[in-house]
Amino acid sequence: MIRSLPGNFPLIPGHEGAGIVESTGEGVSSVKPGDKVLTLVVPQCRECNSCLAPKGNFCEKQDILPSSGLMLDGTSRFTCKGQKIYQAFRTSTFTEYTVVPEIAVAKIDDAAPMDKVCLLSCGMPTGYGAAVHSAKVRELSVCHPGSTCVVFELGGIGSAIVMACKASGASRIIGVDINEGKFPWARALGVTDCLNPRKLKEPVQQVVVEMTGFGVDFAFEAIGLVETMVYCCLESCHLSYGVCQIIGLAPSNSQLSLEALMVVSGRTLKSVCLGGYKTRDCIPQLVTDYLQNKINIDPLITHQLPFDQLHKAFKLYHAGKR
Amino acid sequence: MIRSLPGNFPLIPGHEGAGIVESTGEGVSSVKPGDKVLTLVVPQCRECNSCLAPKGNFCEKQDILPSSGLMLDGTSRFTCKGQKIYQAFRTSTFTEYTVVPEIAVAKIDDAAPMDKVCLLSCGMPTGYGAAVHSAKVRELSVCHPGSTCVVFELGGIGSAIVMACKASGASRIIGVDINEGKFPWARALGVTDCLNPRKLKEPVQQVVVEMTGFGVDFAFEAIGLVETMVYCCLESCHLSYGVCQIIGLAPSNSQLSLEALMVVSGRTLKSVCLGGYKTRDCIPQLVTDYLQNKINIDPLITHQLPFDQLHKAFKLYHAGKR
Repeated sequence: MIRSLPGNFPLIPGHEGAGIVESTGEGVSSVKPGDKVLTLVVPQCRECNSCLAPKGNFCEKQDILPSSGLMLDGTSRFTCKGQKIYQAFRTSTFTEYTVVPEIAVAKIDDAAPMDKVCLLSCGMPTGYGAAVHSAKVRELSVCHPGSTCVVFELGGIGSAIVMACKASGASRIIGVDINEGKFPWARALGVTDCLNPRKLKEPVQQVVVEMTGFGVDFAFEAIGLVETMVYCCLESCHLSYGVCQIIGLAPSNSQLSLEALMVVSGRTLKSVCLGGYKTRDCIPQLVTDYLQNKINIDPLITHQLPFDQLHKAFKLYHAGKR
Repeated sequence: MIRSLPGNFPLIPGHEGAGIVESTGEGVSSVKPGDKVLTLVVPQCRECNSCLAPKGNFCEKQDILPSSGLMLDGTSRFTCKGQKIYQAFRTSTFTEYTVVPEIAVAKIDDAAPMDKVCLLSCGMPTGYGAAVHSAKVRELSVCHPGSTCVVFELGGIGSAIVMACKASGASRIIGVDINEGKFPWARALGVTDCLNPRKLKEPVQQVVVEMTGFGVDFAFEAIGLVETMVYCCLESCHLSYGVCQIIGLAPSNSQLSLEALMVVSGRTLKSVCLGGYKTRDCIPQLVTDYLQNKINIDPLITHQLPFDQLHKAFKLYHAGKR
């Protein structure tokens, strides 16, 4: 999900990952060699104002906005032929070995299958938490006969959002994507209506409002395009109480421009990073929940490739976007 | 609060008002001649999706966005020398007599002092409800040692917001206004720190962030300027969980333009009309709360003028803005 943020190059990308601790530095106490861990693009220092507050998770020691590409001490731990290589958000998981600050790893259950739970490092909680924690789909569903939702983009994040909406009791989940190959999959996860905006005669937001009569309770944008955020996602929301939840990350410096009157009737525009989870506190529990069959991440795995086929994985990813 | 919306002219303005029912039309059952009532710029038809939903109050029979200046049946009930005069939001309270649809009046307690409770028709609940219902200052205050708030503009709406923040347990309330004459008053209501942006060396949002260390939990904009909404109010919010609550109404067609990354860390941008109250259900209770000393509106009354000094009242209002 994290893309197009200002950063330094050359850099080793990748922020989502599961690994085994090989060694630890001085003073590290929460993990030891041999522990299974997940890397955390949003760290949890447990000392800053964000970490100590009951709400929010955007730890002040994060390296996302802006991204220095360096460790907490200002160094990089990678070189290539003598040249400094920067680290992506203090994680850099597209390597066999990486160096990560203690605040950016979470020890997980020893029984966790690493080729599955790596998704719990970022993608799955990003979508799932956005619907459960931030938009609070369940809150409305319990006092309503089910909420109505629309999800823009049905890839990994969008699928996690769909699963969360379904688990929260939503009665109608409209899935929007330009790749209709994702539709059978999306329906299996809980989408009740699939829309391909390229096949519609009217703008998709108009169709969503007409389908629901008045606009949805919750609209989710998992693409990262400002146009989709405002014209599709926000306008699909019920004008009196709809929540527009932005999960996709827009390119840096891009502007969200909306008519001021779009919100005055009661709409909410919000976003959240990594689903609002206090990462070290909550991500290990998600792993345990998966092992206990309380949540399911298996449907999000479409391909499994060895490390040396990383480039093929990128091609598959981009093909899925079209 | 309601201003600069598209409307038809000539029109009798005014939407906030207390009155006594003189006569009723066919089928009217909730009020009868002699009843004391408040006029409601946001009606409550109790039939539409907004009225039936547990959240939201923006009744679909409202005449604010857009404003036709006509009654529900498409007529106006005013003429002047034979010419049609439009009605403001189906209320038009700057008259001795007006015609209002049943859904836009709320019967109130017979003991209510009309020269006071007229404020409960719009201004007071608009500010008070925005803090209590929509931003939910109390929700954070109960799990936190008090919330931090900033209120941009310390007029009638801003003062109501301050009172709600104080009643909700906020520990720090920063009041911002360019008219320092309002500061002693604001302090008496609960403002802990007063700022005049014209006297500051740095932008006010930077000062607010520095004063609180990280930005406030809740920021309220009661002016109606898009620049204040984005640059002052949103940027004053804590980047991880701050809520920017817009109450002021921007001129029609004005654009809110913000960097997309401003919200990605967890900020919320929202607005609400008339404090989110389901008006006919809730406004009468506010009147009763006032009579029972549970809420106090007296501090919001700075002047009392007879009807024939309406123009003087406007002059006083505009003088207070400078």
